[in-house]
Amino acid sequence: MDLNNRRTIRKFKSQDVSDETLRPLFEKAFRASTTGNMQLYSVIVTRDKGQKEKLAPAHFNQPAYANAPMVITFCADFNRFTKWCEQRNATPGYNNAESFACAVLDATIVAQTFCVAAEEAGLGICYLGTTTYNPDQIAEVLQLPKLVVPIVTLSVGYPDENPSCSDRLPIEAIVHQERYKDYTKEDIDRIYAEKESLEENKKFVEENHKENLAQVFTDIRYTKKDMEFFSQKLLDFIQKQGF
Amino acid sequence: MDLNNRRTIRKFKSQDVSDETLRPLFEKAFRASTTGNMQLYSVIVTRDKGQKEKLAPAHFNQPAYANAPMVITFCADFNRFTKWCEQRNATPGYNNAESFACAVLDATIVAQTFCVAAEEAGLGICYLGTTTYNPDQIAEVLQLPKLVVPIVTLSVGYPDENPSCSDRLPIEAIVHQERYKDYTKEDIDRIYAEKESLEENKKFVEENHKENLAQVFTDIRYTKKDMEFFSQKLLDFIQKQGF
Repeated sequence: MDLNNRRTIRKFKSQDVSDETLRPLFEKAFRASTTGNMQLYSVIVTRDKGQKEKLAPAHFNQPAYANAPMVITFCADFNRFTKWCEQRNATPGYNNAESFACAVLDATIVAQTFCVAAEEAGLGICYLGTTTYNPDQIAEVLQLPKLVVPIVTLSVGYPDENPSCSDRLPIEAIVHQERYKDYTKEDIDRIYAEKESLEENKKFVEENHKENLAQVFTDIRYTKKDMEFFSQKLLDFIQKQGF
Repeated sequence: MDLNNRRTIRKFKSQDVSDETLRPLFEKAFRASTTGNMQLYSVIVTRDKGQKEKLAPAHFNQPAYANAPMVITFCADFNRFTKWCEQRNATPGYNNAESFACAVLDATIVAQTFCVAAEEAGLGICYLGTTTYNPDQIAEVLQLPKLVVPIVTLSVGYPDENPSCSDRLPIEAIVHQERYKDYTKEDIDRIYAEKESLEENKKFVEENHKENLAQVFTDIRYTKKDMEFFSQKLLDFIQKQGF
């Protein structure tokens, strides 16, 4: 799968992904850029049926989770580096927001590089957005210590479907030259026109008895109430982990 | 440059990177996974000498910034999506931490996919860690509205150096099976042994008159005082942008 034609995979064959297959993917992923070469991440592989079942509620047992042979959780990790400092008579100061930001970037960069390598190798992946919803439950199952926060969970396996590429906004809608050019009413109409005109999206609106696609997002998929609930949960958990 | 041999580039030829070269890289990058297909990011290209000079202090005018023909700033952006919702009689609820987290992941995933595509195309990149230090100054120069926060800045250009790969921790130090296995004293010694034994790192310790490599990090490169200062600045700015 090349970068132009990649598709998220939500249906996987039952076939396991071996350690021999995974290792070179991790090797590639860990070559990615990292803040000051500190490698502020850890990766947890979940294959065991019991563990996967315990983790399921945190991911709302969504189909893309349930039918994957494995998931991999990428964590922001300042625990290992901090332990190293403490053991070397060096005083770490990494229990704060800036350190957390560095570790989040590191973990995400590695996760995405893993995805590119995995897709090149014929695997399929799906990002589970639930990771930032329920980091507390995930941390409990994976036994994450302080200064470790789960950031990205990927379902990984051999694809058992061949979906078409999903739509994207026009490039001009995303790329700004020199300065951010804020969007006029006309810009917004133009940018979202194609998305709104797609048959699958029209069907989506109809099925949900909404006036338009934007309302499907605000009233059903990503509601203010949910986002505020998960915000508080996320902030509490980050603080609990010591950042 | 394949993923196994990639190197960060800090010295660039003066040659410009054309829009014709950039466009297919953005096309690839924007195919990457994004939360609910919301594409919660914007990208700002800085080539203009005047703009690049104004942005320089925010990046401490570091050599990897100064000698690059261009930089690209990847922003977490809920402004565009929110405007769309408002224009469609839909009530957005995206001025909170969970929404910010989604947009940070989206922006970082796109930035890293851009890096992979750029390196494949013979370009070199360098992540500038200064973006989370001085997001306020960057936002001012790039005129970022509310709900837009700069997350990643990349120096981009044709490489004018051929550095060797930097060291990485052993894979076993990063990957955990089923559960996070916290590090014992012996684990830490073993994991960091190779890094500590490298000639370049020993030289680094000596030049900085420190006892060991960890102290170079805690006392010089990433001090508690700096991290706390930039934490407050970052948190204040995220709040100012409305998240």
